[in-house]
Amino acid sequence: MAGKACNVLITGANRGLGLEMVKQLAEMSCPGRKIFAGCRDPSAPKSQSLQELAKKHPGVIHVIRLDTTDPCSVKESAKQVSLVLGKNGLNLLVNNAGVLFHSNMQTTGAKEMQDSFNTNVVGTMMVTKEFLPYLRVAAKSSGKSGMSCSKAAVVNISTILGSMTTVSDMYSFFPGISYRISKAGLNMLTVCNAVEFKEDGILFALLHPGWVRTDMGGEGGEIEAPESVIGMLQVMDSLTEKQNGAFLGYNGKPVSW
Amino acid sequence: MAGKACNVLITGANRGLGLEMVKQLAEMSCPGRKIFAGCRDPSAPKSQSLQELAKKHPGVIHVIRLDTTDPCSVKESAKQVSLVLGKNGLNLLVNNAGVLFHSNMQTTGAKEMQDSFNTNVVGTMMVTKEFLPYLRVAAKSSGKSGMSCSKAAVVNISTILGSMTTVSDMYSFFPGISYRISKAGLNMLTVCNAVEFKEDGILFALLHPGWVRTDMGGEGGEIEAPESVIGMLQVMDSLTEKQNGAFLGYNGKPVSW
Ligand SMILES: NC(=O)c1ccc[n+]([C@@H]2O[C@H](COP(=O)([O-])OP(=O)(O)OC[C@H]3O[C@@H](n4cnc5c(N)ncnc54)[C@H](OP(=O)(O)O)[C@@H]3O)[C@@H](O)[C@H]2O)c1
Ligand SMILES: NC(=O)c1ccc[n+]([C@@H]2O[C@H](COP(=O)([O-])OP(=O)(O)OC[C@H]3O[C@@H](n4cnc5c(N)ncnc54)[C@H](OP(=O)(O)O)[C@@H]3O)[C@@H](O)[C@H]2O)c1
Repeated sequence: MAGKACNVLITGANRGLGLEMVKQLAEMSCPGRKIFAGCRDPSAPKSQSLQELAKKHPGVIHVIRLDTTDPCSVKESAKQVSLVLGKNGLNLLVNNAGVLFHSNMQTTGAKEMQDSFNTNVVGTMMVTKEFLPYLRVAAKSSGKSGMSCSKAAVVNISTILGSMTTVSDMYSFFPGISYRISKAGLNMLTVCNAVEFKEDGILFALLHPGWVRTDMGGEGGEIEAPESVIGMLQVMDSLTEKQNGAFLGYNGKPVSW
Repeated sequence: MAGKACNVLITGANRGLGLEMVKQLAEMSCPGRKIFAGCRDPSAPKSQSLQELAKKHPGVIHVIRLDTTDPCSVKESAKQVSLVLGKNGLNLLVNNAGVLFHSNMQTTGAKEMQDSFNTNVVGTMMVTKEFLPYLRVAAKSSGKSGMSCSKAAVVNISTILGSMTTVSDMYSFFPGISYRISKAGLNMLTVCNAVEFKEDGILFALLHPGWVRTDMGGEGGEIEAPESVIGMLQVMDSLTEKQNGAFLGYNGKPVSW
């Protein structure tokens, strides 16, 4: 169970869904758990809520500097995490960091396309590559058969906007073309990883968090972050090898490609 | 009909499928047709076959310097095309230029991911944006109702490898992770464009050319370029507003996302 995944790393954990996930995981009773809360700038005002939360859970929440688009930062974060983990593995990596631009074809450009892609896809890829050795340790040492988030898993936070089948209904209302393209790419990355690392016993899945009232989701969102995260943690708990490579909503329902 | 689309621009036209498409279009009888054959380096040895073909069809094939990842080249190419077009529009843009790297997650890196994305997605986007005014002219001046490749259309050359549903069967045999990710992104771009430019009467579609024996497809390919292009031109001929945003094989069969 994600709720019982011992050692968890969440990227983009200083606000929004990432922060709420750190909070809910920290409040569950789970002896020995280490939660690594990655954020770009731990000492900035935007990371204050995370720092306060970490103070409430000493030895449990470890705030780690992690800019997913900066190769040095990604490498450095793995060193810090491994110092805390010692010989233990990382059970769950949640690639949550993401950016959204609200453009359509006519208002977007090459730079925005590249920025979206770098954070939402390349960043996720580079973080996953860097932490694979620690996920492998967790998979090997778990002694459990099958796949689960308590053994070794990577959960990538995608969106229903990355689904080709939703474009005709939703595009006029919500274009976000560079975001959609990057999330479709993220979906493909995840499906490929699910095949490539199957033998290693590492589960890969995609979650759509719902339309959530965060900075990104805006005030028009349909749900609050706690509801989304309660749902996503439940779904993570339920994942087995049958869901390896799956794309599910926070309500557990499959999302079409 | 693509076969009757008067004015056509094809990117990556100096070899492989692009060159074959220029050839077949030039050999069809279609009075007044202008074929713009985009290629990165018209004077290089790799463009010799195209130059020879152009000599056989003077006034029909116009070789245009067009590096789809170079913004200046994209702008310059549109100027050249517009000089030839005069007041006429561009009926069909075939975004065919593409690159493939044969890596998996463990052997790929950020640079390869960005290069694939820049050519296969951003290049396609920037070329499409630049030529939209000429496609709009064609759509407005056609006098035809509905949508078609002879009126105004953009056909993006994708691949079945960009389809999420083929990964579990084909990934071990053919990973190409950065290529798959970029083509999934290209699919999303196309589906979004199909919605955004519907009102303009410009059709957007995706084609999978089959596995073809070109430099990219390799010797193991299942078909030769002429067979693929005959099929793709037939499919283009058959496209109507019902296929706006569709993803079809060179045999006309729908490809799943
Ligand atoms: N909210 C929704 O309705 C919704 C719907 C579907 C999917 N999602 C997805 O859910 C995830 C979280 O969204 P959210 O609503 O919580 O967004 P948010 O409130 O905008 O938070 C985004 C988080 O990502 C971090 N981030 C961005 N770029 C980063 C980088 N290069 N390195 C490290 N961290 C980075 C941000 O850090 P800074 O504070 O440093 O900027 C922030 O912590 C995203 O992947 C998003 O696409 C959200
Ligand atoms: N062959 C297959 O089996 C197969 C299967 C599925 C999909 N496809 C797709 O079909 C399309 C054509 O493939 P192909 O087999 O003909 O490949 P190819 O033989 O490798 O030719 C690729 C063409 O794209 C051009 N190109 C690459 N980057 C460019 C850029 N930045 N600007 C302008 N032109 C550029 C190349 O020009 P240079 O000569 O200058 O490099 C070349 O003309 C590609 O989009 C490919 O993904 C092919």
